[in-house]
Amino acid sequence: MRESKIKRGFFVGRFQPYHLGHHEVIRHVIHEVDELIIGIGSAQDSHTLENPFTAGERVLMIVRALEELGIDKRVYVIPLEDIYRNSLWVSHVCSMVPPFHVVYTNNPLVYRLFKEANFDVKHTRMYNRNEYQGTEIRKKMLEGDEWEKYVPKAVAEVIKEIDGITRIREIAGKDV
Amino acid sequence: MRESKIKRGFFVGRFQPYHLGHHEVIRHVIHEVDELIIGIGSAQDSHTLENPFTAGERVLMIVRALEELGIDKRVYVIPLEDIYRNSLWVSHVCSMVPPFHVVYTNNPLVYRLFKEANFDVKHTRMYNRNEYQGTEIRKKMLEGDEWEKYVPKAVAEVIKEIDGITRIREIAGKDV
Amino acid sequence: MRESKIKRGFFVGRFQPYHLGHHEVIRHVIHEVDELIIGIGSAQDSHTLENPFTAGERVLMIVRALEELGIDKRVYVIPLEDIYRNSLWVSHVCSMVPPFHVVYTNNPLVYRLFKEANFDVKHTRMYNRNEYQGTEIRKKMLEGDEWEKYVPKAVAEVIKEIDGITRIREIAGKDV
Amino acid sequence: MRESKIKRGFFVGRFQPYHLGHHEVIRHVIHEVDELIIGIGSAQDSHTLENPFTAGERVLMIVRALEELGIDKRVYVIPLEDIYRNSLWVSHVCSMVPPFHVVYTNNPLVYRLFKEANFDVKHTRMYNRNEYQGTEIRKKMLEGDEWEKYVPKAVAEVIKEIDGITRIREIAGKDV
Amino acid sequence: MRESKIKRGFFVGRFQPYHLGHHEVIRHVIHEVDELIIGIGSAQDSHTLENPFTAGERVLMIVRALEELGIDKRVYVIPLEDIYRNSLWVSHVCSMVPPFHVVYTNNPLVYRLFKEANFDVKHTRMYNRNEYQGTEIRKKMLEGDEWEKYVPKAVAEVIKEIDGITRIREIAGKDV
Amino acid sequence: MRESKIKRGFFVGRFQPYHLGHHEVIRHVIHEVDELIIGIGSAQDSHTLENPFTAGERVLMIVRALEELGIDKRVYVIPLEDIYRNSLWVSHVCSMVPPFHVVYTNNPLVYRLFKEANFDVKHTRMYNRNEYQGTEIRKKMLEGDEWEKYVPKAVAEVIKEIDGITRIREIAGKDV
Repeated sequence: MRESKIKRGFFVGRFQPYHLGHHEVIRHVIHEVDELIIGIGSAQDSHTLENPFTAGERVLMIVRALEELGIDKRVYVIPLEDIYRNSLWVSHVCSMVPPFHVVYTNNPLVYRLFKEANFDVKHTRMYNRNEYQGTEIRKKMLEGDEWEKYVPKAVAEVIKEIDGITRIREIAGKDV
Repeated sequence: MRESKIKRGFFVGRFQPYHLGHHEVIRHVIHEVDELIIGIGSAQDSHTLENPFTAGERVLMIVRALEELGIDKRVYVIPLEDIYRNSLWVSHVCSMVPPFHVVYTNNPLVYRLFKEANFDVKHTRMYNRNEYQGTEIRKKMLEGDEWEKYVPKAVAEVIKEIDGITRIREIAGKDV
Repeated sequence: MRESKIKRGFFVGRFQPYHLGHHEVIRHVIHEVDELIIGIGSAQDSHTLENPFTAGERVLMIVRALEELGIDKRVYVIPLEDIYRNSLWVSHVCSMVPPFHVVYTNNPLVYRLFKEANFDVKHTRMYNRNEYQGTEIRKKMLEGDEWEKYVPKAVAEVIKEIDGITRIREIAGKDV
Repeated sequence: MRESKIKRGFFVGRFQPYHLGHHEVIRHVIHEVDELIIGIGSAQDSHTLENPFTAGERVLMIVRALEELGIDKRVYVIPLEDIYRNSLWVSHVCSMVPPFHVVYTNNPLVYRLFKEANFDVKHTRMYNRNEYQGTEIRKKMLEGDEWEKYVPKAVAEVIKEIDGITRIREIAGKDV
Repeated sequence: MRESKIKRGFFVGRFQPYHLGHHEVIRHVIHEVDELIIGIGSAQDSHTLENPFTAGERVLMIVRALEELGIDKRVYVIPLEDIYRNSLWVSHVCSMVPPFHVVYTNNPLVYRLFKEANFDVKHTRMYNRNEYQGTEIRKKMLEGDEWEKYVPKAVAEVIKEIDGITRIREIAGKDV
Repeated sequence: MRESKIKRGFFVGRFQPYHLGHHEVIRHVIHEVDELIIGIGSAQDSHTLENPFTAGERVLMIVRALEELGIDKRVYVIPLEDIYRNSLWVSHVCSMVPPFHVVYTNNPLVYRLFKEANFDVKHTRMYNRNEYQGTEIRKKMLEGDEWEKYVPKAVAEVIKEIDGITRIREIAGKDV
């Protein structure tokens, strides 16, 4: 198939961590495209309560979790450093990933920026938005509540292997 | 297999373009590791004679070329923006890609930086170094000489699909 | 008139958007100088609720609005990207605009920085400060309230031509 | 006239200094557009042999020289800091200046970048290219040769007022 | 004594201003090391209520205050600009200061980052934490309350000599 | 002595490495000032043939070498990261170091920039310029020639302790 014929989709998030909400979006949009690009936003951030995991750790979470989905299409997982200028962000994304034609997002700014650049932008369905939410999951990690059930099994494993909960608690100044 | 047991290798280049020299290195080192990370250096550069292709275009070249190798191990293809400080570069790489244990390189600076950081660094074999060389291949592209035979078939296709030769010639101020 | 004899004034704002408060300041200070420089601060910011308009859009607003004032002196309208270091900001401004001798501002930080650099700094009069205020006007734009009467006619036209209200509402995640 | 009906042109240079070659280009292209934007490239550079003058000094040169042309159309003179990434440069320019539809340039990279972004790009005529050339003029300034005849009268005045020749010679380590 | 035998400690703060809490920490840890490095964090910040003093002013405060302690060991006082990426910060520090083996800190993030990099990290004792605290002291400076007793005598002198209180009050928009 | 009465001098270099030429300059200028600031330029650079040593390593060289001079005045050794804009460099230096009144330099750009900022700038004497020169000394280090006699004894020790010669040779791709 020629490059120009390939229908490629773009989905971006910070994935702090990658959770079941993301998982469900991908499970569905994968059927609408030939190939999917997953952009890891704010790739340069880590070791904060808002962004505890490095881009590399997030790559690991996503790649392993995707195997649970049994996808037989090419998926590109690409860290994207922030460019700190909204007017340049679409061009920045386009330079870092293979060409794409459709964008999946529920983020109003992402939506607007790609629309101004004449992309085909689609809202994604929300899956259990109250529970499948980074902020809430990180809070549970910090407070010692159960968090594993909100992320794919592979993600929970990665977080344990890198001792991610200790990192979050130490950064918060909590006794571990 | 637990994360800490996985032997992951790291191989970095600018891949302007990805050529048969890179291809041969990967064909060999893939047998020494469980998983391989391919870092695309100077990811932010494009549209110059030295760095004609965007990171996204290079991702495309590499991912498609790898399929020719029939590899059955996980390979991560990760764009790496320059950090412009040698003393920070190893930490930068480590933050952007999954954890790795061995580095394959023939670049003296890369070799030294990883060695100072106590990594296991190995020289790669050279495959037909005179011909399989980015500088030479870009020169052929510019001059209108035959260049396709120095790159994997998939890479030649990508370059044609993005009309890469025209870009190089126009940037050089040549009539197209 | 020799350069060194020209009395040039400097007035800086973010102009998100340029409103009647700015307009009144300029109407008055223009009489105290031979030429006026209008610096557009945080030029790199756009597409946020705090900074919805690009520097180019703000240039357009200001240049057209100034024509309403019928000024017969040279006015320079210069976008100024942030330098993110207060101790360098005065030098940054001075490198980007023609030489000037007097600064008009009510911003305490701008006042202090120029004073430490031995400039002649003057407070501007406040014109209807409650209504002529960027924050309030952007809020009206967002909420669908009347905002046109707080900006020069030319500015309202520019905002309509670039469909600025839709941008603000979409970024805020509001139905349009 | 509505914004969308205005035919605006964009012409970019480093203008180190603004010389008669630039002057002739503007004298001609001004007839093809309703308004003209003059972008001052590498605005952040100064005090080198390649880029001796600050952006503010170049603004001054250009604005005063333009008056010699007796133009009765709006001309925007806008400093443009480098963004150091070719793939972002067109977006960067577009965010900093009013919307434009046609680009005038003889620079191959500028030509290519705007063409990839689907702009209407036109080559400018060359006026006495051997003599009207920044490199040559700066060399004459440095060597103490006659340089005034290659720039508009207003530009020569500005350079004398800011004592620009002394700066160039001192930076080069020459006795003054 | 050979370099590798020297036990060097690292202590970092923003020192806005250097106060008696810092003073007490240094008075104690100096006995545990051969040499001490004092890193001045966020060196690039100044002229804000949170960071009123420049790095150079803070160098002055610290160097003069240290003389009150009568230390007979080498102390290095080094400004450290922010690197804005937690994953690079330890490498950044290590490149800017002489090699060190032990870190003294009560900051949870600093603690965690150095621990992940396998440094020997020690908590410092807290001295009168309620009073000896930058935030509180800056508040007193702003409000016109007595602040001198919370800082070493030498620091109070430096702040008066640079007229630091006026700066803080002007930045806050207070009448002076 | 009050701050404003202290005559402080500023001397800047890259000190790659600190050599006997620098040493002689300091030996002489120290008599003309009450306190001396030594700025380490391009502090962020290391691990190149032009800039092999980190700022921290250079701090070590300088501080130890100064002890050979038996100076009884305060000397501040301050790393200065590049700001990449000549028009901001003087302000940058001034924000990072204590206030100073006189600058010692033979670098034409440094000379010019401080002169434009109305500093008292003095040329330093040249001591055996042919031999005491960073470029020449680094070349000897690379080629395996004798280099120790061109640097203070303390500097030679530091370079050996950090195994600096091996670094230079490895970066150059030489067998070690």
